[in-house]
Amino acid sequence: MITTDILIIGAGPTGLFTVFEAGLLKLKCHLIDALPIPGGQCAEIYPKKPIYDIPGFPDVLAGDLVDNLMKQIEPFEPTFTLGERAETITKLEDGSFIVTTNKGTKHHAPIVAIAGGLGSFEPRKPQLEELSKFEDKGVEYIIKDPEIYRDKRVVIAGGGDSALDWSIFLADVASEVTLIHRRNEFRGALDSVEKVQELKNLGKINLITPAEVKGILGEDHVTGVAIEKKGEDPFIVDTDHFIPLFGLSPKLGPIGDWGLEIEKNAIKVDNTLDYQTNIPGIYAIGDVNTYPGKLKLILCGFHEATLMCQSAYKRIFPDKKYVMKYTTVGGVEGFDGTKKQAPKAIVKAIV
Amino acid sequence: MITTDILIIGAGPTGLFTVFEAGLLKLKCHLIDALPIPGGQCAEIYPKKPIYDIPGFPDVLAGDLVDNLMKQIEPFEPTFTLGERAETITKLEDGSFIVTTNKGTKHHAPIVAIAGGLGSFEPRKPQLEELSKFEDKGVEYIIKDPEIYRDKRVVIAGGGDSALDWSIFLADVASEVTLIHRRNEFRGALDSVEKVQELKNLGKINLITPAEVKGILGEDHVTGVAIEKKGEDPFIVDTDHFIPLFGLSPKLGPIGDWGLEIEKNAIKVDNTLDYQTNIPGIYAIGDVNTYPGKLKLILCGFHEATLMCQSAYKRIFPDKKYVMKYTTVGGVEGFDGTKKQAPKAIVKAIV
Repeated sequence: MITTDILIIGAGPTGLFTVFEAGLLKLKCHLIDALPIPGGQCAEIYPKKPIYDIPGFPDVLAGDLVDNLMKQIEPFEPTFTLGERAETITKLEDGSFIVTTNKGTKHHAPIVAIAGGLGSFEPRKPQLEELSKFEDKGVEYIIKDPEIYRDKRVVIAGGGDSALDWSIFLADVASEVTLIHRRNEFRGALDSVEKVQELKNLGKINLITPAEVKGILGEDHVTGVAIEKKGEDPFIVDTDHFIPLFGLSPKLGPIGDWGLEIEKNAIKVDNTLDYQTNIPGIYAIGDVNTYPGKLKLILCGFHEATLMCQSAYKRIFPDKKYVMKYTTVGGVEGFDGTKKQAPKAIVKAIV
Repeated sequence: MITTDILIIGAGPTGLFTVFEAGLLKLKCHLIDALPIPGGQCAEIYPKKPIYDIPGFPDVLAGDLVDNLMKQIEPFEPTFTLGERAETITKLEDGSFIVTTNKGTKHHAPIVAIAGGLGSFEPRKPQLEELSKFEDKGVEYIIKDPEIYRDKRVVIAGGGDSALDWSIFLADVASEVTLIHRRNEFRGALDSVEKVQELKNLGKINLITPAEVKGILGEDHVTGVAIEKKGEDPFIVDTDHFIPLFGLSPKLGPIGDWGLEIEKNAIKVDNTLDYQTNIPGIYAIGDVNTYPGKLKLILCGFHEATLMCQSAYKRIFPDKKYVMKYTTVGGVEGFDGTKKQAPKAIVKAIV
């Protein structure tokens, strides 16, 4: 059982910044995210794209924003359950919660902050009968650890950035990379398209277009895929892995069944005070929530996280009075023993 | 008469960021600030101090945050009335407002956003009878343009950062710099104290401590100050300028008389929707406002500014429907003809 003060569901920018604001209040955080890395969409979907409306950044790449936030929260030693989806929640008699993931990991906390963004990102899957049988047995929709493909044969399907970029990356890792797409045209950054063309010319990527995977072969593990190329007879490509990269689509998912008030696929919260949901102790912040005038912007999530932490503090310590100190004045004291603070003024005679 | 869409009172971080969010909605902004430079406290009081709780910045100097915001809003061509304090407001029949400063500058806009921070920063003044007579005639409390002191004699009074830093700066500009403080001890950054000591040793700063200015001499303009050094007879120092730098203290000031609901020296706003005050069309955002759970943090001001701009838009264009586009998707189109946008994906065959 993992225990913490604030259990944050969703490790996107809002969830990450919550760790900072909680940390200033000496509250510890643990984050659960279905994706294999922290950062949410910013890290997984568009790390190389600029965001222009983060206050103080004329522009910042989404991936760099995540890196900055990770650095900012480092003193507060957040812990993570990654690659698992929060599945069920149980409220205990003392008002605290147990959240269990789809892999059975259990988390216990007095406060749950849902910072789930548009939901957990679920991969779009090809329509293949035998697909589910091979999941985690050679079929993967998200590349969690590229090292598992070292010296293995992989077949990647897809025509977007993800398929292009992972084909490029794995060309140096896997023993054989085959890229299959149902059209000749790929859609992605110019660089990536050109790089795949180059690797194809060098024979480092085996390109099959326009084509589709129509079947998966294997007993306990993938051993090959059946491919249909337009106007040709189907044929088999031997492979150890089949990786369909058809994009991720967000789903509110199991959280939708937690008894929370839902409106327009988002969780209704009390924006007049602390972004709490209809269940006391459960908050919803960032893109996952809704209230009158709600804007799904990262900068709004930061504000919501900050107010939410104050409310969480009062819930955990109903008798303590917290006096806010500006970080410029009080500094930042990490749980790791670090202390950041403004250089102190000195008092000294000039003679 | 200056006309604009949103008249922002206060050019601190919240006021500045409002320009950006308004700009995305194609609304123009003009800012009024009592200080001679944009940035509010961050620029005038603690530009060299780090802030640790701006999301995405593990640390950022207050002055750098202002510079970044100025760069971020540049495409939206904000205009400024600086060094003047918003004094009176008149609501016209069509619901728009005229705001007049203490210097008589008039501004007309359908929307007024008060982003006044803790209020307008008023200098703490020494208790000297003839002081007001010499204001702007050789007595200045804030240094707006150091060039006016070139080859002039200046007497600076004060024992903090401001007195130290301007003495150092003006040592290279003025023909003679005298620094007077009622104690021998100065309070400031170690660097600054040491630098003043060094300049004093070199004879570039004339130091008189512990001493106080007890009188000002001159007819139409300052010609000297009377100084009393502890235990000694008063004496005269000839000077062209007397600059008491005893700090700035924020005052809500004339805004307090605009008919707005005030609570705890702050303006009450409707935080359930758009941070509007009790007077429709006047909003209050950032540290100047109050509502249940309010935190006086810069990051909260950013959020409030953003929601406020949406409401302002609906007020100005009641019949138009605005569909928010993410800046990553839609880019940022400046009023100056610039366009920032994410590199477009290309669609290209790989053969």
